[in-house]
Amino acid sequence: MKAVGLVTEYNPFHNGHLYHLQTAKRLTQADVVVVVMSGNFTQRGEPTIVDKWTRAQEALANGADLVVELPLFDAVQPGQRFATGALRLLNDLQVAAVVFGAEHPAWDFERLVAAEASFAAPAFTDYRATYATQFNAALVQQTGVSLVDPNDILAFSYFKARAEHKWSMELYPIQRRGSGYHDQSLQTTLASASAIRQAVQDRTDIDDVVPAQTAQDLANLSVIPNWQALYPLLRNHLIQAPVTELRHIYLMSEGLEYRMKEAASRELTFDGFLHAVKTKRYTFARLLRLCLYTVLEATQTEVLNAQPYHHVLGFTAPGRAYLHALKKTVQYPLITKVDADKKATLMNLDYRAGKLYQLFTPVEQDLKHAPIIKLSSKKH
Amino acid sequence: MKAVGLVTEYNPFHNGHLYHLQTAKRLTQADVVVVVMSGNFTQRGEPTIVDKWTRAQEALANGADLVVELPLFDAVQPGQRFATGALRLLNDLQVAAVVFGAEHPAWDFERLVAAEASFAAPAFTDYRATYATQFNAALVQQTGVSLVDPNDILAFSYFKARAEHKWSMELYPIQRRGSGYHDQSLQTTLASASAIRQAVQDRTDIDDVVPAQTAQDLANLSVIPNWQALYPLLRNHLIQAPVTELRHIYLMSEGLEYRMKEAASRELTFDGFLHAVKTKRYTFARLLRLCLYTVLEATQTEVLNAQPYHHVLGFTAPGRAYLHALKKTVQYPLITKVDADKKATLMNLDYRAGKLYQLFTPVEQDLKHAPIIKLSSKKH
Repeated sequence: MKAVGLVTEYNPFHNGHLYHLQTAKRLTQADVVVVVMSGNFTQRGEPTIVDKWTRAQEALANGADLVVELPLFDAVQPGQRFATGALRLLNDLQVAAVVFGAEHPAWDFERLVAAEASFAAPAFTDYRATYATQFNAALVQQTGVSLVDPNDILAFSYFKARAEHKWSMELYPIQRRGSGYHDQSLQTTLASASAIRQAVQDRTDIDDVVPAQTAQDLANLSVIPNWQALYPLLRNHLIQAPVTELRHIYLMSEGLEYRMKEAASRELTFDGFLHAVKTKRYTFARLLRLCLYTVLEATQTEVLNAQPYHHVLGFTAPGRAYLHALKKTVQYPLITKVDADKKATLMNLDYRAGKLYQLFTPVEQDLKHAPIIKLSSKKH
Repeated sequence: MKAVGLVTEYNPFHNGHLYHLQTAKRLTQADVVVVVMSGNFTQRGEPTIVDKWTRAQEALANGADLVVELPLFDAVQPGQRFATGALRLLNDLQVAAVVFGAEHPAWDFERLVAAEASFAAPAFTDYRATYATQFNAALVQQTGVSLVDPNDILAFSYFKARAEHKWSMELYPIQRRGSGYHDQSLQTTLASASAIRQAVQDRTDIDDVVPAQTAQDLANLSVIPNWQALYPLLRNHLIQAPVTELRHIYLMSEGLEYRMKEAASRELTFDGFLHAVKTKRYTFARLLRLCLYTVLEATQTEVLNAQPYHHVLGFTAPGRAYLHALKKTVQYPLITKVDADKKATLMNLDYRAGKLYQLFTPVEQDLKHAPIIKLSSKKH
């Protein structure tokens, strides 16, 4: 059986994702579609609009055959670690190819990766600008290519990860269809996930831009999970914990613990807090991720020592057959049911993140949760 | 100037408190009434109905001349440490007498204290019953007196504290008027604080049972601060922090950290959590206090090493004169304005508790907060 892999967040699953999934399958002539999906928190460190089980269900209803969760320690990360973590799982799951959208799919990404390798990393230490800005300036100078669009950057990260780890899957950048991340328009059947989340918040009709399963999942959503709701937890820990403890939190660097403690004491809203902490050196995404690791009380030691695994969220009949065939050859643990041992060890951080997400839904997120099985096949 | 001292929570200040205050002044012929009052959390570990500044204002409006905050490490404690901490401050503030209500003011409390001293403490180690239950059984056997009513027990604690520390103030138990703590009736002008809080929640009229200032303070209160609102913070810390850290929390004894972590993972309501943790060995009050210290991330080391101080919340002209006369002779720091140094050291735990209380009110509770000055005197 030939498998194609997709790296996703599906926050929520929309028509653009359906197009991506169908194109990937057609392009690669794959028998099964293997999806690696972020759990209950996005790459930017924000809670997802609906939980991972609901989103896995949406994927299965729309053509995915196997949905595996990208563990939080790889999912809530800058693009490079995110891409590497996702490709590591897809490599272990033996997909023949990975298909992803890019703003400029025709670029020679391998050449860009080679160019970057030639830069001396310590050159990018200007504290007034982010690493990404400095890196791109150097890249433009050497190759003429400006790597600024989000999906181009992610595409670059996949090629870089594959090169570094000598993985053998094919990588297919495809033209992104529809709106960009920052485009808030619903004037097409291909709206961005961000525009859809806003529309749900505003109670605007979204039936034209998402498949039926997603429309149903979002129909009764009254509150979109957000950081303002998590802020009391973040604020309290920043106030109560001594800085000697806060400085061990993952991503807490260069005295940020003082800055965050001070801002938490003063600011009663998350927005006020975030702007009080922001400097040019850190992107909002970087700070949001740090906020999440702070609420999870996750230390550098914990995140840096985390070990990969496959947490299976759901499958179809072909997905199950593929999984069965793989069982004996995968390198990382294949987890279909979280028991007390996994909860306490390998999956501990994800388990805790699931408990945190229960602030938004009463549903137990991991313990004793069996994968979703979708046996009735549906033509797409 | 002769001063009489009162130990209070004023949660909120009601007609029974007014009676207590006026009786104390009349009985002792004191010139000034010095009030030691709990801050934003009660002895039972619950957030107060309105903040400490509002309650200090109520006290000043009704005859108190000087209001000093009982620091949290003494306020949120079993009766004995609560009574000792409060009397320690009143002794340092050189009050001539302390007046308090009791169900049986005629009892010879000094004799009961002597009886207790004769018991061998290690005798009370039956894990199936609380210390209080076992102690009382022994007391009944030796003296015939059953110390079960809450204000009798507190009266006993004052006598015991005075005997242990050889303090010299007079102690006046007086007959408690009006309803008991558990009595929820408003059918009198002397309702219990607990009945009044319930009435506020139910939006029942309370004008007959509280002075004008209190009625005004409570008129616009929409939500009564409660543990259900604090629970997400407690739950998250219990889930995220390792047990090796939780076991250092003040009052966290005998493996309770496992029991609490487990209950937090399972229970989505505070009520469910509390009942999951409860055993015969621990009273609800003890568990509520532990919950508060957990949210404050306060360690045994921190609470056991805390040093007394007088945080002045407000005064009248006579109160100010009394304070002025005392200034050079008090042993503990007299704090009228919390600065960055006090916030970081002596008052750190109270500062953090004030930040936690901001979940219920946006008002800054300590930093740069000047005492309330009530100069216009009002006849009572």
